Amino acid sequence: MSVVRSNATVQHREPVSVARRIVVLTEGHGEPVAGKTASCLLRYRTGDIVAILDSTRAGATAADLFGVGGAIPVVSSLDDAGAADELVIGIAPPGGRVPASWRPVLLEAIRRGMRIVSGLHDFLGDDPELAAAALERGVEIRDVRKNTERDLASCQPLREECLRVLTIGQDISVGKMVTSVELAAGLVARGVDAAFVATGQTGIMIAGSGCPIDRVISDFVNGAVEKLVLANQHHDVMIVEGQATISHPQYSGVSLGLLHGCDPHGMILVYEAGRPHHLGLPHLPLPALERVVEAYERMADFRGGGRVIGVAINSRRLHADEADAERDRVRRSLGLPAADPIRHGPGDLLDAVQALAARRRRT
Amino acid sequence: MSVVRSNATVQHREPVSVARRIVVLTEGHGEPVAGKTASCLLRYRTGDIVAILDSTRAGATAADLFGVGGAIPVVSSLDDAGAADELVIGIAPPGGRVPASWRPVLLEAIRRGMRIVSGLHDFLGDDPELAAAALERGVEIRDVRKNTERDLASCQPLREECLRVLTIGQDISVGKMVTSVELAAGLVARGVDAAFVATGQTGIMIAGSGCPIDRVISDFVNGAVEKLVLANQHHDVMIVEGQATISHPQYSGVSLGLLHGCDPHGMILVYEAGRPHHLGLPHLPLPALERVVEAYERMADFRGGGRVIGVAINSRRLHADEADAERDRVRRSLGLPAADPIRHGPGDLLDAVQALAARRRRT
Repeated sequence: MSVVRSNATVQHREPVSVARRIVVLTEGHGEPVAGKTASCLLRYRTGDIVAILDSTRAGATAADLFGVGGAIPVVSSLDDAGAADELVIGIAPPGGRVPASWRPVLLEAIRRGMRIVSGLHDFLGDDPELAAAALERGVEIRDVRKNTERDLASCQPLREECLRVLTIGQDISVGKMVTSVELAAGLVARGVDAAFVATGQTGIMIAGSGCPIDRVISDFVNGAVEKLVLANQHHDVMIVEGQATISHPQYSGVSLGLLHGCDPHGMILVYEAGRPHHLGLPHLPLPALERVVEAYERMADFRGGGRVIGVAINSRRLHADEADAERDRVRRSLGLPAADPIRHGPGDLLDAVQALAARRRRT
Repeated sequence: MSVVRSNATVQHREPVSVARRIVVLTEGHGEPVAGKTASCLLRYRTGDIVAILDSTRAGATAADLFGVGGAIPVVSSLDDAGAADELVIGIAPPGGRVPASWRPVLLEAIRRGMRIVSGLHDFLGDDPELAAAALERGVEIRDVRKNTERDLASCQPLREECLRVLTIGQDISVGKMVTSVELAAGLVARGVDAAFVATGQTGIMIAGSGCPIDRVISDFVNGAVEKLVLANQHHDVMIVEGQATISHPQYSGVSLGLLHGCDPHGMILVYEAGRPHHLGLPHLPLPALERVVEAYERMADFRGGGRVIGVAINSRRLHADEADAERDRVRRSLGLPAADPIRHGPGDLLDAVQALAARRRRT
């Protein structure tokens, strides 16, 4: 596994994919939002990916489609991908169902002896035809969202020497996972014992472990998150990957269970500059950042009272000067450190995390 | 089905149990909190229940154990229960697992040709031994929590002529379901086209339909609740059964998904007077009612901005004069109508619901 942009590593347990030659399937969904999984794997597992499979864009490069991944080729069939031992489903469509048109490709990959890795809600391993083919060929189908979480949170005191930071968002797909990985890697690069704690399918594919909390039975979400925290609190800092937002009309339950289950000391708010409404819901305007901060802090008060300590700006729609202006505006209006962790680098946000750790050590 | 205390009926669709002769299994859990399902069935399906099965309390009556159900006998075996065609699991233990010691009773009930109804997280129908026995005997095992919810909320406008009221709570097991049934039945008795909308296993056993939202995959909770609303919005009023509370460290995700999925016009806050801490979590004191009201209204603002319009007091621990004093205190401190819907009757709360409906009609 390679984490790009720093040589720091994030946690490694029960690896989902290590030292693989991966083909990422994105057929017809070659853009950063629908292809969020592809895009993030291209960013953080660049060295493991041999091709993008999308017959509608064959001949292009990963960089052409996703803005990351450099010259990794986009191919139209597995024949063109060269030697490969794993096929990863690279999209995460709402509802999580696999398009029927992908079945021949999946069967072909299995015939070639490739492992199949999927983060969809529809478990590929439960599909009779795919399961039978995989069994016959001796190939593993790994459904990353599959889980058996059934424990309630104990709500017992956590290890206070471990600083818990949660990324939160104004909306879905704004960059909470990228921000979390950058913060953990940045802290490790500064010599801090920090871990990225994955809570979604793509994060798990990158980290090698974690819990797909949006797939957990709702009664057990808080407990599943607490379990993740308990498993990682030997570190000095954990950066917990956020999911959606507590203000989101479709997913708010997931987000609040995550907040209360991990009871963070600090939160980093992530948003995409220039996004006018909830992604895919043009009739629902986004709440102001101030309202999101206030709601999260109010709800955090029911546990340890964590506060928002910084803002990560996803400025992909902006030019450089616009991004700088946006950063200044947010710093002033929210009174918090702010930066696009990709464009500006995560330095200011790392400082905020380390300052919080220092304040807590003093008290 | 019989709804006690009024002749009003609540909604009937896909009945879980109609005109049955029911034995309620509570073995060793004969008290109102652990035996919440038993207690509520005794209250609202009194006429359908022939016996309580609890060998540790045989010879007592339902009223002795649960304070409801009158002279319904507590028996030590199915032999003593008389003719019966359904066995209902009457407890809802945290985590939802069936005690191993109950297996012989379940198998005996199946051998007698009785239907098995369970609200546990552990699906009895998935148990190979029980499933095989039921198949052989031609008996149904009905796992009320089983669901296949996989739709996201559309967040499209709802029918505004239907008033949506949600019961919310300071904690779990305070009486949200009882309050919801009493409100719906009370409105029907006043000639209002009102429906009780069940969101938990016991509510579903009483109403005959609903969605067990704490068992829904967390990603789909908001959507499952919206679907329930869409199915019931032909009524003039729906009383949606609340679950847990958004301030609960173990279950808050369920509660927020429910709030945002149903987007209520009004909320009725339910609490148990004299409860010092979260049930079963003595290290976690309860937040003040005012904070719970404020948090719910703040989170409701991300949708239609519903407000708390009344308080239902569960005064089972109090003497009559204490309950009246508590009612006065809450009326003053929260500035809202308040009543124990069982002890004082639901009149004041029904007035509050009808006043809200009238205000909305005028605007």
